[in-house]
Amino acid sequence: MNHSTPIQVLDAYKNAVYDADADAFLRLYDPAARVFDTWGVWSYEGVAARRQAIEGWLSSLGDERVVVSFDDVMVIVDLELAVLTATGRYAAVSTSGVELRSMQNRFTWALKRKGDGEGWLIVHEHTSAPIGFGDLKGILQRDGA
Amino acid sequence: MNHSTPIQVLDAYKNAVYDADADAFLRLYDPAARVFDTWGVWSYEGVAARRQAIEGWLSSLGDERVVVSFDDVMVIVDLELAVLTATGRYAAVSTSGVELRSMQNRFTWALKRKGDGEGWLIVHEHTSAPIGFGDLKGILQRDGA
Repeated sequence: MNHSTPIQVLDAYKNAVYDADADAFLRLYDPAARVFDTWGVWSYEGVAARRQAIEGWLSSLGDERVVVSFDDVMVIVDLELAVLTATGRYAAVSTSGVELRSMQNRFTWALKRKGDGEGWLIVHEHTSAPIGFGDLKGILQRDGA
Repeated sequence: MNHSTPIQVLDAYKNAVYDADADAFLRLYDPAARVFDTWGVWSYEGVAARRQAIEGWLSSLGDERVVVSFDDVMVIVDLELAVLTATGRYAAVSTSGVELRSMQNRFTWALKRKGDGEGWLIVHEHTSAPIGFGDLKGILQRDGA
């Protein structure tokens, strides 16, 4: 697929999560991508290190769907490098369309233009929640920060 | 000061923190920089929004010094945009040189080349700790993740 803008990569990310399609998801990343994820692991160095986590997440959803949306998206595009920042929202939705729960994170991508005219690949992802000063817990809703 | 590479901005960041110099620190940032910080606040939109937090942090240190160091630094430089990722370590050191405590974070910068040949400014910063699956607490040491 041709993702000729970083926003199109964002759309492909939403679709891959909604479809629980780990292969489509991981194809958005450069094989050497460094990922600082919100949950549990300091750093994934390369897609191979991350495959098991993504497959585990998406296969754990069962009949639920995860609807991802983005707010306050900012994009900076240079010649062969782009940066995208946003607030992400991940909502679990039942088969009957009821939203069961949701969380938000801060979302940063660095993307590199592919040489073959095929658009952009994610070379770095950093997602997180801020940590509360008092209880040291992650703040998983923007309004809670 | 002329920071002709992103690594020189990293050195200037270390020096500004060690000197507890809020002005030198904030001068490293574009006035409109979006900062997703490790602690307590979802997003700082612009340097003005962040000044109070930085001044508060640096003035709270008293006689202690904070020694910042970076591991696993990766830099991608394009024409007018650069991305830097690393693990940061912040160590509080007493006047007699004893390390009192430390924490680590995941560290991402996007930098823009200034038009006047004066080097690079930070346009986006994202620092964080991953959140533990069980207790939802921030993991503030890489070895703890």
